[in-house]
Amino acid sequence: MITYLAVDLGGTNVTLGLVTADGRLLQRQRFPVRAERGPEPIIADLISGLRAIKDKVEPNHQPAGVAVGAAGLIRPREGLLVFAPNLPGWRDVPLADHLSQALDLEVRLENDANLYALGEALVGSGRGLKNLLLITLGTGVGGGLILGGRLWGGSSGTAGEIGHMVVEPTGQVCGCGSRGCLETVASATAMTRTAREWMSAGRTCGYTGPLGNLTAAHLYDLAEKGDTLAQEIFDRAGQALGLVLTGVFNLLALEGVIIGGGAAGAYRFIFPAMYQEFSSRVFAVAPEQIRFAPAALGDDAPLFGAPALFM
Amino acid sequence: MITYLAVDLGGTNVTLGLVTADGRLLQRQRFPVRAERGPEPIIADLISGLRAIKDKVEPNHQPAGVAVGAAGLIRPREGLLVFAPNLPGWRDVPLADHLSQALDLEVRLENDANLYALGEALVGSGRGLKNLLLITLGTGVGGGLILGGRLWGGSSGTAGEIGHMVVEPTGQVCGCGSRGCLETVASATAMTRTAREWMSAGRTCGYTGPLGNLTAAHLYDLAEKGDTLAQEIFDRAGQALGLVLTGVFNLLALEGVIIGGGAAGAYRFIFPAMYQEFSSRVFAVAPEQIRFAPAALGDDAPLFGAPALFM
Repeated sequence: MITYLAVDLGGTNVTLGLVTADGRLLQRQRFPVRAERGPEPIIADLISGLRAIKDKVEPNHQPAGVAVGAAGLIRPREGLLVFAPNLPGWRDVPLADHLSQALDLEVRLENDANLYALGEALVGSGRGLKNLLLITLGTGVGGGLILGGRLWGGSSGTAGEIGHMVVEPTGQVCGCGSRGCLETVASATAMTRTAREWMSAGRTCGYTGPLGNLTAAHLYDLAEKGDTLAQEIFDRAGQALGLVLTGVFNLLALEGVIIGGGAAGAYRFIFPAMYQEFSSRVFAVAPEQIRFAPAALGDDAPLFGAPALFM
Repeated sequence: MITYLAVDLGGTNVTLGLVTADGRLLQRQRFPVRAERGPEPIIADLISGLRAIKDKVEPNHQPAGVAVGAAGLIRPREGLLVFAPNLPGWRDVPLADHLSQALDLEVRLENDANLYALGEALVGSGRGLKNLLLITLGTGVGGGLILGGRLWGGSSGTAGEIGHMVVEPTGQVCGCGSRGCLETVASATAMTRTAREWMSAGRTCGYTGPLGNLTAAHLYDLAEKGDTLAQEIFDRAGQALGLVLTGVFNLLALEGVIIGGGAAGAYRFIFPAMYQEFSSRVFAVAPEQIRFAPAALGDDAPLFGAPALFM
């Protein structure tokens, strides 16, 4: 049985796992990242964690490689983590080389959202589709694009940045340097910020705690209780998503969209406005033939993408 | 020597040609389309024109197939012209079958902008690039997307509709049913309409004829003489193009953009604002590494794409 070690390296947590070629997760381990320590101790933790998993595996199930998904700008061909906004001190780190030398295994590095997309395409909500987009709504808005059954990295390997398609040309300044990117409206961060702004400006909702403590989870709870302000926040995110998807589908004629990431739990609050905007605008595809779905694999989705990186 | 017959079917003209597999145009013939007559007489003209070319070809250069580019919504796999806004009466016409039966040759049908993109990729401004976008600025805004050296049609074969990516969510109603599409700002039609509106509202420029006679060609002449209003129109189109290209390159990480179509002559008036907008916003690619160029092949570009449809 062919297996692969898998790593999902985020700014808050690391998840390690052992995945079979047909997409079963045999082992899984999660630990917090203390990002402020910089790359060296984190890489050491990765190596010892992966060694521990490898040592427990029977000889005939030994992993054939290591797939790493990291939240940042990646050059997959060089195995280089160029820059990670939530991992201070990581600049041009040859992460694949470090792990490969320590573990004596082939290591492939990808953007975490790309690995997530492969996981969902292989054994999640995108199963059976050859052309699909995964959008992750979390601290930021990430994406992974599958074209013809394969991950699309583009010429530089850095494609898939759906979060930085523009929806409000003169909107909020974005972390990427542009303005009015999808991320400035539809990320969990943006939704929370907007809710705080509206409440500071005098609008009320079911949340009565300190504004600084308001999170996307509160918005979700509020929407479940029928709160108007919370639903309006999700509508606004849905509308921005529908606008971006119109352009993407007119250009690429995909078959499906999967919404994942931390805010994917709010899928049913986001979907109506998203679909309304998309179906009233899109032109190159029949909207009712497009599969829209929330991600199926939860936080571990990137691990499930590992085998696909070696196919 | 392998040759192909090529047809570029537009709402105003038809161009027929004979192209070699390595991209030389051996014969070329253009005649006006009297679109109001509906499909039958036009198809008859196509057949007799193609027969006349075929009859003049030496036996060892006989064409191996016919490539047809048509301005409209195409289902390439079925050889079906679904709908053509500028060809009244054409609805679900099995054009490939008609031509194939009459000429006893394999016929492949594509959207004209897609064939144009293949031509530019093969022997025009996109030569040597594997991942590129062609944008045609004319009556509408069309596009053709080359990914990994091949035309990207998407799941339905209808991809490449860059003209219907949204730049002004609450902007002008577009012919596609959406609002604020790139086409509503950057097509020759839109640029002319905007100039007329501005002049009706009291702005002056070097054009003194009747407003109804103003064309994109006038705007080009005016911009050449340094006219402020004309340059502003081109800046506005360039800015909208730059905004759309930001999203496309963040998502797809392409290598180049070719601007073609009737308004491509105004490339140098459009480029500065387009590049300024793009380079100040784009994130997933280094803007200075992207090839920007006007189309090289002029009106005959779609003919040059014919061999690529059979590769």
